[in-house]
Amino acid sequence: MSIRIGIMGYGNLGRGIECAIRQNPDMELAAVFTRRAPEALRILTEGVKVYPAADAHLFKDAIDVLILCGGSATDLPIQTPAFAKDFCVVDSFDTHAKIPSHFANVDEIAKQNGTVAIISCGWDPGMFSLSRLYAEAILPNGTNYTFWGKGVSQGHSDAIRRIDGVLTAKQYTVPIEEAVTAVREGHTPTLSPRQSHLRECFVVDKEGADTALIEQTIKTMPNYFADYDTTVHFITLEEFNRDHAGIPHGGTVIRAGKTGWEEENTHVVEYSLKLDSNPEFTASVILACARAAYRLKREGAFGCKTVFDIPPAYLSPKSPEELRQTLL
Amino acid sequence: MSIRIGIMGYGNLGRGIECAIRQNPDMELAAVFTRRAPEALRILTEGVKVYPAADAHLFKDAIDVLILCGGSATDLPIQTPAFAKDFCVVDSFDTHAKIPSHFANVDEIAKQNGTVAIISCGWDPGMFSLSRLYAEAILPNGTNYTFWGKGVSQGHSDAIRRIDGVLTAKQYTVPIEEAVTAVREGHTPTLSPRQSHLRECFVVDKEGADTALIEQTIKTMPNYFADYDTTVHFITLEEFNRDHAGIPHGGTVIRAGKTGWEEENTHVVEYSLKLDSNPEFTASVILACARAAYRLKREGAFGCKTVFDIPPAYLSPKSPEELRQTLL
Repeated sequence: MSIRIGIMGYGNLGRGIECAIRQNPDMELAAVFTRRAPEALRILTEGVKVYPAADAHLFKDAIDVLILCGGSATDLPIQTPAFAKDFCVVDSFDTHAKIPSHFANVDEIAKQNGTVAIISCGWDPGMFSLSRLYAEAILPNGTNYTFWGKGVSQGHSDAIRRIDGVLTAKQYTVPIEEAVTAVREGHTPTLSPRQSHLRECFVVDKEGADTALIEQTIKTMPNYFADYDTTVHFITLEEFNRDHAGIPHGGTVIRAGKTGWEEENTHVVEYSLKLDSNPEFTASVILACARAAYRLKREGAFGCKTVFDIPPAYLSPKSPEELRQTLL
Repeated sequence: MSIRIGIMGYGNLGRGIECAIRQNPDMELAAVFTRRAPEALRILTEGVKVYPAADAHLFKDAIDVLILCGGSATDLPIQTPAFAKDFCVVDSFDTHAKIPSHFANVDEIAKQNGTVAIISCGWDPGMFSLSRLYAEAILPNGTNYTFWGKGVSQGHSDAIRRIDGVLTAKQYTVPIEEAVTAVREGHTPTLSPRQSHLRECFVVDKEGADTALIEQTIKTMPNYFADYDTTVHFITLEEFNRDHAGIPHGGTVIRAGKTGWEEENTHVVEYSLKLDSNPEFTASVILACARAAYRLKREGAFGCKTVFDIPPAYLSPKSPEELRQTLL
């Protein structure tokens, strides 16, 4: 019997989940839920229906794991605890500072209702978090570094688009090559934000807009840009659509650590991702976690979990015997 | 209370365990066991004694986890099941083809005696296995590649040392740069052994030895060298001791996979290690696994496990709350 997946929210991430289900023979798409008008939505999978988000609870017995594809700012803090009442759920909550409170909220509901909720799945938080944990557990005397990019930051792109005179924009976060190289060589520098990443912006301005003012506004924007070296390129809408349509991302987690009686030996552990599509890769991680949620639930587990709590074997469709034989 | 560690076998790996214990404040070295004469052994840790291997069972209640530092060829197939009777144990059994039978043997004894045994810990098998599993679970449509090196292969070095006229030798396994680059760029080539790695040998010949014959013997040695491009350098003992004293190793696991409705997007996941000391890094992984064995045992678990079965959080000394707050 395959794992019946429900998708809550059909944006880039929801569509990514739909595509990923097709690659996992032990899963099937049961239903898609939306807050938009269901009849206005066209999904890719034949024979699967779209329903109003408000009706999701009616599908309690038809869905094994509900994937929550909303945003971390306003959707997930409400949706994840709410749906954990009726469903095993997986989300990609990525506001790092608020993970402890989100975890506590979801854990309470999931425990009360005997469901499994896996939060903060994706690549950061997610695979990058795992890499940080494993590397730190192995090499206690060392330093973790995380570099993001080159890739599109949705938050920074949004911030630019809100500036007066901007038609559309995309911001790439780019790791500083010298910093990455130094860490990769086993050094443990103290890096400021400016020494770690630079920000490259491609902006389409509206007719008659003051480009000098836009550039100035971007470069001095607190939190988002002021602490970084930022370059701004004004381009045409045509160029924008031709060269900046994708949502690539990636990055690297590096830990350099010392071992030996006198700490005489250096080891460098690196985990890196080069992703053509940020939402599709995130969706792929989420789906592996959905498999784990399903199995944990069947074993009688409940409560909120993160990737830190999941035995790696639970993510794979292979049996323990097969895993030991083919991958160990 | 700290985790009391016993070391069985005091070679490079055993010494690596001893050094790693010093970096983990929640652990202490309880005893070292050896098959040599205990009084002939000088260990680094003050106040800790060396005992005959045959007396280990007397320390059943004084040791939480016994680390088995023997070799995979003849020691561990006997030692791991034998000691799993009285102890929670961790080994680094690395004969990939024999892992299933080793697992079965150890599992039976551990289950009968209520102990936890974690086998095949290290970096391959170990961290590389985890990387293969995670990447495959996330990207079902893709291909795993493992490249080893540049680093010293103990087995190949031994094979050369057994040749007539060889005083000592070291063999470096070197990944073929073009192959690594192709995979890193998202291609999925079919690679023969020769297209994946080359072998570089540094040989000190005995006086009067026939170097041409030695070189010929190495290059045509079946299994070890015949399927690879191999270079042989004859050097002096002085050069050998100056330039080839270390035991560096490392390598990289790369998976390129496709996502999207039409598989239009490519993702590259890479985990790589650059290690100054192969045995010390292996020891560091083993010790994190020892922590997991200790915790699993306290929770009432028993039987044989591998890294695939261990929730990542169990490897870290941090609490779940701390992990979520600092590393997720």
